[in-house]
Amino acid sequence: MTNSPSDRLGEFEAIATLFAPLAAKAPGALGLTDDAAVLALPPEQELVVTVDALVESVHFLRGDPPDAVAKKSLRVNLSDLAAKGATPHAYLLSLSLAPWVDNAWLAAFARGLGEDQERYGITLIGGDTTSTPGPLTLSVTAMGAVPRGKMLKRSGAQAGDLVFVSGTIGDAGGGLAVLKGEAANDAGLIDRYRLPQPRSELGPKLLGFASASLDVSDGLIADLGHIAQTSGVRIAVDAARVPLSDAYRKIIGEDDAAIIRAATAGDDYEIAFTAPASAGGTIASLGFPVTEIGRVESGAAVVLIGRDGKPLTVVKGGWTHF
Amino acid sequence: MTNSPSDRLGEFEAIATLFAPLAAKAPGALGLTDDAAVLALPPEQELVVTVDALVESVHFLRGDPPDAVAKKSLRVNLSDLAAKGATPHAYLLSLSLAPWVDNAWLAAFARGLGEDQERYGITLIGGDTTSTPGPLTLSVTAMGAVPRGKMLKRSGAQAGDLVFVSGTIGDAGGGLAVLKGEAANDAGLIDRYRLPQPRSELGPKLLGFASASLDVSDGLIADLGHIAQTSGVRIAVDAARVPLSDAYRKIIGEDDAAIIRAATAGDDYEIAFTAPASAGGTIASLGFPVTEIGRVESGAAVVLIGRDGKPLTVVKGGWTHF
Repeated sequence: MTNSPSDRLGEFEAIATLFAPLAAKAPGALGLTDDAAVLALPPEQELVVTVDALVESVHFLRGDPPDAVAKKSLRVNLSDLAAKGATPHAYLLSLSLAPWVDNAWLAAFARGLGEDQERYGITLIGGDTTSTPGPLTLSVTAMGAVPRGKMLKRSGAQAGDLVFVSGTIGDAGGGLAVLKGEAANDAGLIDRYRLPQPRSELGPKLLGFASASLDVSDGLIADLGHIAQTSGVRIAVDAARVPLSDAYRKIIGEDDAAIIRAATAGDDYEIAFTAPASAGGTIASLGFPVTEIGRVESGAAVVLIGRDGKPLTVVKGGWTHF
Repeated sequence: MTNSPSDRLGEFEAIATLFAPLAAKAPGALGLTDDAAVLALPPEQELVVTVDALVESVHFLRGDPPDAVAKKSLRVNLSDLAAKGATPHAYLLSLSLAPWVDNAWLAAFARGLGEDQERYGITLIGGDTTSTPGPLTLSVTAMGAVPRGKMLKRSGAQAGDLVFVSGTIGDAGGGLAVLKGEAANDAGLIDRYRLPQPRSELGPKLLGFASASLDVSDGLIADLGHIAQTSGVRIAVDAARVPLSDAYRKIIGEDDAAIIRAATAGDDYEIAFTAPASAGGTIASLGFPVTEIGRVESGAAVVLIGRDGKPLTVVKGGWTHF
């Protein structure tokens, strides 16, 4: 064992007092008193499983509010589930505690998990707590349910489909620019950077008509590139249709450079998806902010079409206009 | 991102070249090209899920062979699945790579995973790769299948049941003593310490008659204590029946002190379970080394009965004879 605050709760105490209450609603979690959890699904459903790790000083900072770290660790996974059309079900938490982590941090962290469990309808069913001499490291394995054979994949986009994205793009990148002192202050943009807002309600509603789907974490263009590659298609995005928030327009701008910045910034945690043109009416009736931004064509790669009709072409490490 | 060897494979390359081949047999892994995996189970089965993290300098050392680190990370989870009666099915790997990890390490690590996938019939279905400025940290989420409602739990032991353990106890502790220079050299004991040998074949055979079960990782007495606590019973273990290997007897001894050491050392990764006395014949016919070591009684806690008929009673941090 490594050094840790001498009064920090031991593994068993931390589980019993802080984490077991988070598992109370899942009978298969067995109160976190067993070696494993057990999980049954109705026969018409299957399980969607994803894992994401967060590392102190890479994905968050030591001084970040513990409840926000907890929520971020859940939400990056919830965003993956949403984009796959899955309804959140359960998660496991692997926690490697740095020496500086004390009981107050752990309690606030568990409180954050509890708040998001209520918000997103997901329950802790298992985990592991270890010590580490290094940075605090969290790994969340999240599980959701979809009807059998219906999970939305990156593959499946076909020439003729339209391309859509939920919400607005670039806000998290704008928030990072604010934090770096590169842009005027805006609390809303900073919030978007600090805490993902996964589209958990929208995702399952896309089942049945979206042909390909993923969440926007690497950047709109890079992530659409994953769809293009996996589906074997070309995707053309109209720069002018990339949805920018009023705050982004005000703080960062709305010219081509600002659009490119938004479309390559990442951390948006919106859903980008493709669907046949015939689905347009259904999508409009969903009651969620979804914007049509482009089309699927034969070919390869993603191209961003500028307002002047000329393509913006990707180069290593960024985008250039030519 | 943190510093890492400049020629180290990026996340996408590492996934494509080293890890995707490990997922080739699982259609639901989608070649590791999607955001999540999808998993279906026959309706008569349910999923058993467990997670364990390994941290460099806490659970293994930087200089340990990478294939052994890979195998240990899988096997500690496979041991949990076995003790629950589950047949291995799939796993997810969350990998936080330290700056010192290079391509050769990654390749040997992936090779180790591949070897154990073959050996234990389990397949990679997803994961996450991040960088860390700190120690290499691995978290494995393993999933197995059991018939619905049949998972072996820590609860369920009843007064009148007998207590059994597979294999031999104390060898891993003996191996650690060798490595610390506290005992004469013995390669077999060191092997038992370095690499768990999960009882994946035995575990599912216990379904239907074991009343409670877990794997021995904290130490035989401590782990039986978990069964006693969760089941609300007292467990009496006869010290003379604790199965010691010939190597352990030779290197560490076989007196009361040696037995106590074996029963409290941990890292055995054997299965300790309880079963009605009527199951004795079935257990003997399984064809696995299983020893009857004690009985379940009314009451609480675990007591180790010495060869002289007197109980050895637990004290904080160890055991004392009185």
